[in-house]
Amino acid sequence: MRIGVLCSGGDSPGMNAAIRGAVLRGVDVHGFEMLGFMDGWRGFHDGEYLPLDRLAVRGLSPRGGVILGTSRVPPFPGGRGTPEALRSVAERFRALGLDGLLLIGGNGTQTVARMLSDAGMPVIGLPKTIDNDLDGTDYTFGFDTAVSIAAEAIDRLRTTGESHRRCMVLEVMGRDAGWIALHAGMAGGAQLTLVPEFPETIEQISEWVLSVRDRGRSSLVVVAEGFRLAGSEAGAVGTQVTREGHDGFGRPRLGGVAEVLAPLIEEHAGVETRATVLGHVQRGGPPTAFDRVLATRTGIAAADAVARGQWGMMAGLRGDRIELVPFVEAVGRLKTVPAARYAEARRNFG
Amino acid sequence: MRIGVLCSGGDSPGMNAAIRGAVLRGVDVHGFEMLGFMDGWRGFHDGEYLPLDRLAVRGLSPRGGVILGTSRVPPFPGGRGTPEALRSVAERFRALGLDGLLLIGGNGTQTVARMLSDAGMPVIGLPKTIDNDLDGTDYTFGFDTAVSIAAEAIDRLRTTGESHRRCMVLEVMGRDAGWIALHAGMAGGAQLTLVPEFPETIEQISEWVLSVRDRGRSSLVVVAEGFRLAGSEAGAVGTQVTREGHDGFGRPRLGGVAEVLAPLIEEHAGVETRATVLGHVQRGGPPTAFDRVLATRTGIAAADAVARGQWGMMAGLRGDRIELVPFVEAVGRLKTVPAARYAEARRNFG
Amino acid sequence: MRIGVLCSGGDSPGMNAAIRGAVLRGVDVHGFEMLGFMDGWRGFHDGEYLPLDRLAVRGLSPRGGVILGTSRVPPFPGGRGTPEALRSVAERFRALGLDGLLLIGGNGTQTVARMLSDAGMPVIGLPKTIDNDLDGTDYTFGFDTAVSIAAEAIDRLRTTGESHRRCMVLEVMGRDAGWIALHAGMAGGAQLTLVPEFPETIEQISEWVLSVRDRGRSSLVVVAEGFRLAGSEAGAVGTQVTREGHDGFGRPRLGGVAEVLAPLIEEHAGVETRATVLGHVQRGGPPTAFDRVLATRTGIAAADAVARGQWGMMAGLRGDRIELVPFVEAVGRLKTVPAARYAEARRNFG
Amino acid sequence: MRIGVLCSGGDSPGMNAAIRGAVLRGVDVHGFEMLGFMDGWRGFHDGEYLPLDRLAVRGLSPRGGVILGTSRVPPFPGGRGTPEALRSVAERFRALGLDGLLLIGGNGTQTVARMLSDAGMPVIGLPKTIDNDLDGTDYTFGFDTAVSIAAEAIDRLRTTGESHRRCMVLEVMGRDAGWIALHAGMAGGAQLTLVPEFPETIEQISEWVLSVRDRGRSSLVVVAEGFRLAGSEAGAVGTQVTREGHDGFGRPRLGGVAEVLAPLIEEHAGVETRATVLGHVQRGGPPTAFDRVLATRTGIAAADAVARGQWGMMAGLRGDRIELVPFVEAVGRLKTVPAARYAEARRNFG
Repeated sequence: MRIGVLCSGGDSPGMNAAIRGAVLRGVDVHGFEMLGFMDGWRGFHDGEYLPLDRLAVRGLSPRGGVILGTSRVPPFPGGRGTPEALRSVAERFRALGLDGLLLIGGNGTQTVARMLSDAGMPVIGLPKTIDNDLDGTDYTFGFDTAVSIAAEAIDRLRTTGESHRRCMVLEVMGRDAGWIALHAGMAGGAQLTLVPEFPETIEQISEWVLSVRDRGRSSLVVVAEGFRLAGSEAGAVGTQVTREGHDGFGRPRLGGVAEVLAPLIEEHAGVETRATVLGHVQRGGPPTAFDRVLATRTGIAAADAVARGQWGMMAGLRGDRIELVPFVEAVGRLKTVPAARYAEARRNFG
Repeated sequence: MRIGVLCSGGDSPGMNAAIRGAVLRGVDVHGFEMLGFMDGWRGFHDGEYLPLDRLAVRGLSPRGGVILGTSRVPPFPGGRGTPEALRSVAERFRALGLDGLLLIGGNGTQTVARMLSDAGMPVIGLPKTIDNDLDGTDYTFGFDTAVSIAAEAIDRLRTTGESHRRCMVLEVMGRDAGWIALHAGMAGGAQLTLVPEFPETIEQISEWVLSVRDRGRSSLVVVAEGFRLAGSEAGAVGTQVTREGHDGFGRPRLGGVAEVLAPLIEEHAGVETRATVLGHVQRGGPPTAFDRVLATRTGIAAADAVARGQWGMMAGLRGDRIELVPFVEAVGRLKTVPAARYAEARRNFG
Repeated sequence: MRIGVLCSGGDSPGMNAAIRGAVLRGVDVHGFEMLGFMDGWRGFHDGEYLPLDRLAVRGLSPRGGVILGTSRVPPFPGGRGTPEALRSVAERFRALGLDGLLLIGGNGTQTVARMLSDAGMPVIGLPKTIDNDLDGTDYTFGFDTAVSIAAEAIDRLRTTGESHRRCMVLEVMGRDAGWIALHAGMAGGAQLTLVPEFPETIEQISEWVLSVRDRGRSSLVVVAEGFRLAGSEAGAVGTQVTREGHDGFGRPRLGGVAEVLAPLIEEHAGVETRATVLGHVQRGGPPTAFDRVLATRTGIAAADAVARGQWGMMAGLRGDRIELVPFVEAVGRLKTVPAARYAEARRNFG
Repeated sequence: MRIGVLCSGGDSPGMNAAIRGAVLRGVDVHGFEMLGFMDGWRGFHDGEYLPLDRLAVRGLSPRGGVILGTSRVPPFPGGRGTPEALRSVAERFRALGLDGLLLIGGNGTQTVARMLSDAGMPVIGLPKTIDNDLDGTDYTFGFDTAVSIAAEAIDRLRTTGESHRRCMVLEVMGRDAGWIALHAGMAGGAQLTLVPEFPETIEQISEWVLSVRDRGRSSLVVVAEGFRLAGSEAGAVGTQVTREGHDGFGRPRLGGVAEVLAPLIEEHAGVETRATVLGHVQRGGPPTAFDRVLATRTGIAAADAVARGQWGMMAGLRGDRIELVPFVEAVGRLKTVPAARYAEARRNFG
């Protein structure tokens, strides 16, 4: 069997480990021929790929990024999954001589995977995203690494914040879901955690910052990039942050939500406040052991699914097992932070 | 309500975070009075405890060890849970004015928790152990930290092993269950993983080491401390390793399984081999973000269980939720590495 | 003898270790009474201080920040070291019953130390700054930690940059001197390093980024916050960055040099480019072992200097020894990156 | 010019960075042809080498180990530098068409470098050793990484030691010089530091451990592998530790000084004590930023020395500069811990 591997969307720590897991299992145990498309759908369309054998994946488990490259090039020529576009992908599938395709990606990619599968193509999904906003799996690989990096930043900011009696605001990734902020904030003992799912007013935030100061401490506020203010200052935070971290004109945006929030806190609470935007550091470098294991097991499970012909499924984490989940259960819905989880983390009384 | 907290057994990264989670939730949200017994059951028997309020748990999330201390002092005067011994504990319980007790510990401690609960005492269990050998929960806090430390050691040993073309043997913790070896080995891409559950012969191990050398690489062997050799050399590894890391006379043992295995590999495979015993480093220092979150949530869930009067339960991780599990489901059985998981990791073909 | 300790200016990893070193040596070996002023000169003026004994400094070596707090409150009531102002400080000195003062700070603080010393006050300087821009010492404590954090960020950004074939721009601290950029860039193998001392044109930068792309790699550009563009776009980078990380109106500035540089590179080189501003993360958290040792030894040397009555000196690192350097040699000059060092790092051909 | 690179002795973090620095400077700036011998002198004798161009050293700065491999194969056929043996090496030098040789190694290797130089061969030395026992340089690359790893181990052991009220003994590398123990102990705030240069009696050690316990703390003892007990128990520690970490029969030794010392402390002080032998973990993995910069600059300086024809020198660190030091000043003497440095660290009163 000739099996393709394709990564799409933003990179996520663990992608290399997932590829390695799938290849070692697929090639050595199941005898597949495997190949990886370069730069996501671009390599698929251009027929540019890397043969994936044991040597190609040697030593990949601890390595960040992804050897194949990834991109946001759309799978469909015109950008939409019309019947015609799907036929064109299926043709390319045949022309490449593929017996199956492993699709490593987030919500968008798994939605595409489902469309291809519905159109009859043999596809398996491997969920990855640092944002953890994918349904059908307890956690996506890359998330734990992003949380670890953000938690370490909190640990660092806390000491300098307390030395200067400042409020420190840390912006972490999460446009639509606040998972990184929620977990990093809890791990780091952040005084306030602000997520896209639950707007707060600047008055409420300032009151909390003041109550922390009244207890003799300095506030550490962790805020997801997609957080929006409620109330009168709602316009102040939010407008500047647009999809893909660009302003409306396709240029990298200047400043994030933290850089708008910090002066507002300083103004309302009268506490000196500094902003830090963690940015791309969150998605790079060696994956945590947790992500390496999760990604490797996901890759192994995907290779086994191919061997059993279980197409049209995503390899998700369920408890301590990797299970195959039908695409219909996994895609379409964004997994967001539920109210009960937010209630535990919103404000830290410590 | 007056709620005690008690840690028993070996320390595990995340214990402080669990205490902090339980106290912030218990004191601030539920209005409990809380107190923590010093050095496990010793403090319970001696009536030595620390009042646990918000200030007492400030900044604890990232801190390793446990502020209360922990010990292996037995809960029962004579060491056995006889009816009389249980009555004596119940009396002490009343004398201390306790309305409930949170027991943070591993398999042994949770078994005690069940006995106390069966005897009518209001108890909630919080599972902790770096060994991850507890049933009723997907993972125990402390495990992820231990795996991370072991995986980092593998990353380090690999570079020096390859520079000198040596086989490196790393011994990690795990007397009865090979979870740390399994996960750290997979994360680090170890060539061989040896666990207590599945003995191997020295001939088989040597053959693998040689096949790795034939592919131009150096072997990294991760071995759990409880691993035993099968076959003719079975006596060589195993006899020296006894409970609690002591020799039969209560003195710290000299040398571990790695230090016996390394010269055997050198002898049988003819490959220069070096041993490293990671030891107590695995259980110290700041918990990973994963363990901090898991421990904090476990503490929160335990405080909530107290508030709802759900006694006789253990707060376990199930998928991405903390659920209360009756002791009967959680204790007694050791959770060991199943054959399917071992088959994925036993030998790495990369 | 009654010896005060005072920290002034921005915090720097290692300040706690320096205090601990001075106190353990001063109190236990030399029998001093020691006290630390809270929040820099504020505590000195307000008479707010912490008695510094063995217990007060327990466990401080690995801890970031500084237990005394630090601030930019000026030493002199009117902000200038007029004869009158100096007399007022000397009076306060006497009123506090001080026999000596250890001043932990950067260039500004050491200049003040010299003024006090010239005015007859018994003062010893301990040089700290993450910027490493102090003469009279090979390295200042805090610098190695900042470089380590920046180098780790480079390692992380590199993998995500290469996965997406993007140019990544990392802004590190350094308003007047490019030491952090120089060392972190060399440690991380940055393709380009841009420092305040040596302006470059956007055309030159873009040419380098393109030549890196032509060799099949992605550029990692590390830029010190004080870097200025030369040539036609000179106005574009620089105006927004002002002293203390504030805009001209005392509010935290929005965006740094990286956020201006990145779109210019994208425009001129036609390579997708992303900016990250590392910010306060660089000055927080546990110091590196190097900084802990340097700071501890500096504290010990300062206590010994007090015991020997060697006032008017700064405890500087010279090779592998801590030596006392007269203030006249240590302050006044900013230590900047020399041309020969920049030539080694400016452009990395790898 | 055709320049060889050769690594000899134990590996040391930073060797790859040094090779990269020398190659980027040598090939791109000076136009050398460069080649690296595989596995030290073995590759020199067998004529097995790797052409070293820009591509060969790409991305090497953060990588531990050494791409060329290293070994303890002796440079001289018979093992001794007889006139005949030197002639034979010189002949091989010519046969390989070398115009110069960069020798990366510790004391032994630099002594060989001097012999070759005295015999007329154009050689430059690059000092590396994690032990830091080389004269003629402030620090050797690899040392800072080893210290960092050991200091992190101390941080970890401390939390578990304090939770269990145990004395923890950590053995670090250092057969003849105690530099790693000295610096790691100071960085980690170890209560006791034991080095080969200064024997102590078990009675003295136990007294210190007890005085620490009397102050309510747990002892952390860091001991260099070459430490010997003074007094009546002198025989107990020392005999088992032999050159190269082997027993007298060439098999890896079982147990180190820590494993002998721990039960003696437990016996004499009556405090529960545990031993950890850090071992090879100290010499592997990514170098610290400090070591990467030091190694890169050493490589650059060596390439520049070649270009200027400054043979017979070692590139040493002097303050913040790399300087060329004649072999006569650099080799022969072991740099050991002086009494004044030991006095600062021997016993920590904190």
